[in-house]
Amino acid sequence: MRHFTNVHDLGNLQLALQEAFDIKADRYKYCELGKNKTLMMIFFNSSLRTRLSTQKAAMNLGMNVMVLDVNQGAWKLETERGVVMDGDKPEHLLEAIPVMSCYCDIIGVRSFARFENRRDDYEEKILNQFIQYSSRPVISMESATRHPLQSFADLITIEEYKKTDRPKVVMSWAPHPKSLPQAVPNSFAEWMNATDYEFVITHPKGYELDPAFVGNARVEYDQEKAFEGADFIYAKNWSAYNESDYGKVLSKDMSWTVDERKMKLTNNAYFMHCLPVRRNMIVTDDVIESENSLVIPEAANREISAQTVLKKILESL
Amino acid sequence: MRHFTNVHDLGNLQLALQEAFDIKADRYKYCELGKNKTLMMIFFNSSLRTRLSTQKAAMNLGMNVMVLDVNQGAWKLETERGVVMDGDKPEHLLEAIPVMSCYCDIIGVRSFARFENRRDDYEEKILNQFIQYSSRPVISMESATRHPLQSFADLITIEEYKKTDRPKVVMSWAPHPKSLPQAVPNSFAEWMNATDYEFVITHPKGYELDPAFVGNARVEYDQEKAFEGADFIYAKNWSAYNESDYGKVLSKDMSWTVDERKMKLTNNAYFMHCLPVRRNMIVTDDVIESENSLVIPEAANREISAQTVLKKILESL
Amino acid sequence: MRHFTNVHDLGNLQLALQEAFDIKADRYKYCELGKNKTLMMIFFNSSLRTRLSTQKAAMNLGMNVMVLDVNQGAWKLETERGVVMDGDKPEHLLEAIPVMSCYCDIIGVRSFARFENRRDDYEEKILNQFIQYSSRPVISMESATRHPLQSFADLITIEEYKKTDRPKVVMSWAPHPKSLPQAVPNSFAEWMNATDYEFVITHPKGYELDPAFVGNARVEYDQEKAFEGADFIYAKNWSAYNESDYGKVLSKDMSWTVDERKMKLTNNAYFMHCLPVRRNMIVTDDVIESENSLVIPEAANREISAQTVLKKILESL
Repeated sequence: MRHFTNVHDLGNLQLALQEAFDIKADRYKYCELGKNKTLMMIFFNSSLRTRLSTQKAAMNLGMNVMVLDVNQGAWKLETERGVVMDGDKPEHLLEAIPVMSCYCDIIGVRSFARFENRRDDYEEKILNQFIQYSSRPVISMESATRHPLQSFADLITIEEYKKTDRPKVVMSWAPHPKSLPQAVPNSFAEWMNATDYEFVITHPKGYELDPAFVGNARVEYDQEKAFEGADFIYAKNWSAYNESDYGKVLSKDMSWTVDERKMKLTNNAYFMHCLPVRRNMIVTDDVIESENSLVIPEAANREISAQTVLKKILESL
Repeated sequence: MRHFTNVHDLGNLQLALQEAFDIKADRYKYCELGKNKTLMMIFFNSSLRTRLSTQKAAMNLGMNVMVLDVNQGAWKLETERGVVMDGDKPEHLLEAIPVMSCYCDIIGVRSFARFENRRDDYEEKILNQFIQYSSRPVISMESATRHPLQSFADLITIEEYKKTDRPKVVMSWAPHPKSLPQAVPNSFAEWMNATDYEFVITHPKGYELDPAFVGNARVEYDQEKAFEGADFIYAKNWSAYNESDYGKVLSKDMSWTVDERKMKLTNNAYFMHCLPVRRNMIVTDDVIESENSLVIPEAANREISAQTVLKKILESL
Repeated sequence: MRHFTNVHDLGNLQLALQEAFDIKADRYKYCELGKNKTLMMIFFNSSLRTRLSTQKAAMNLGMNVMVLDVNQGAWKLETERGVVMDGDKPEHLLEAIPVMSCYCDIIGVRSFARFENRRDDYEEKILNQFIQYSSRPVISMESATRHPLQSFADLITIEEYKKTDRPKVVMSWAPHPKSLPQAVPNSFAEWMNATDYEFVITHPKGYELDPAFVGNARVEYDQEKAFEGADFIYAKNWSAYNESDYGKVLSKDMSWTVDERKMKLTNNAYFMHCLPVRRNMIVTDDVIESENSLVIPEAANREISAQTVLKKILESL
């Protein structure tokens, strides 16, 4: 594996899952693999789970880790040629990226959607510039349109807890006070579509995701109907994708909050969320604290997904 | 040992001191003990000595270290159930703490008194929430009411330099321009009361500490009388503990500054302070630079106290 | 080697270069040398290349690394004796420096010129205080007047690419929108003067550097004349050194930008710059992207220069 930005980079998904469970059984089994190899994690946006779990994963493999915090976009890089750089951008990405790649073996990049322009976000400019101009393998630690380390952890968790070969997985929009990117729902859809699960997406009208990510998933506007017979409920808020409302909060409809009444419509479904979660907006206290809540095992699997990805890249260096 | 928040967690103090001196004699003797173990240090308040000495101690034991800076309380965690989280708190501690504990084996927490409400501070809410909701051993890296890694280092230092079996140790209040917590004097008193030293506390009226920490110590309002025959002078400022003045600066009386004249009243006492220290308020240049000043060896022993605590916890994992 | 602040600390430059190339051939050859040794990097000013390359170099040698960011001078240390410390300086350097040195084996310090007073900058107060009051070897990670890890990397790069025994090296001033220190040009001149290269400095009138650094270099005010027959062009902006204009931008004359026309005057010279670089002010896109541009290999050699210095200090501990 060269770069890791989406589900297809993993190759055979079943084999990747086997590697993940192998690592989970003994996470220090490959602690010599990363000896004298360095992961550089570059954060254009803040991070808690991703930072800690990815660093832990790299250390499990015996890697060295360097962290670079680029203060909320304060480090402005010039991206165009021919510009007289007499303004507020002190460095050109054509120097910055190759230099950073000098000092490491693998680069992790986090860079969120900016919501200024849908096309810019969906072109994944920053992530692709790292892929193009660094000479190193690049791992997405959440980009404008995807969060593949999260989705891989989600898949590992479903595989661990599923009671049937082909579970029904429902991704449900839920209300949130602020505008959030589509990266997590896009990515979750992409990964679910790579399995043979029954996959349903439910959300209010206006919250349609990019068709490229929705794929063959069933879209159901009636949340309760969607929940019927579900084995896993994956709750998540996202802002509007459609061109005219891109990045906007169209609704804070609290009737979409996942609660015990709705969970009773399911096949005793597990509850999942990528965290952080706004309680009593996305989900009630009762549901997230119930025995069927997988939010902590799901977060714990972030270490496993990151370690599987790093191991595969290290093996191909 | 499970958690480390106060002197009693150490068990037999003489044995713990023997372990400390054993470590000091060869601090890399146990460099394999922490292999594939991770310390996560979480700072709700800034730190210099504690951060560096605890990280060094962990590395001496072969541990991996991850540092999480929670910007001066900027990361607001919801703590109540039933709240609709539509405000400025993006995460509930019931998720945040278990998630952080996923990625490590031991958690260090620093969280100062807030001075909003004495009861909240003395209930040690944040520290206790980590103990309650993380599944990991928790080390206090200074809490609202105690600074046990400092006090343990202080005790190690006194044991190294004492000339009699039962030295007279005097903790003296001294002036400071700003309001400081009671954590260091509380904790020092707690540790001194766990020894058979002669222990005296001296301070102006109004600066009485929590009786639970003062214990059987002699309280002497006349600083000069307290200094007579002392073997160790431990200077420290603290703000008022009494309910009506809690957290306030009642006095900046410079007649309480430790100077050469007062040191002459002692039994050629050593001078101690936990640092950072305001010179010529807490202590004069002459005293802190004198041959009897132990402030640097005392700071150096922070590495030893932290390493002893980490070693004991690692051995019981 | 004890401290590393300038070219003379390296001792025999040819032997040091041999060590550098030995390390470059196998940078993990000495990965046991730094076992149980800790480098503390203290940044009074921000850093990208220096932070990453020095940390990488230390890790290559098996060292532990601790990083201390002193927010842009926000951590104010009292430096005078006799001062009643009741203001905004919470700690005296006479405590702070010895304490920091407690927890490490080698200290790296970055502290730029402040441009308040030329004499203060050129006395290297902060760097010298660390040398005087810490008990550890000190490495300059760029000081007020020198950037020796950069200059050593520059020298390594020239040695790798030179086509004749005694190449002509030209350091050329070039325009920049903001005021920059003289540390890089001073240091480069110092290192070039320690070789037997032909070394020429070219800059507009008013930009004369400290004669102590210029040494026997030829100073040529006509940039084109300077470029004739050059094997290496080392571009750099600096602010005025002369007393009355110290730290000022006297000119942004874009006729000094290094472009293809001027490069044609040279002996097919390589182009060098320490980065970050303002394109189309210091140098045109065409020149920095040309086959003769060494800016990336030069940055990569920062790891090698730092590792050589750390290795030499570790060997003498």
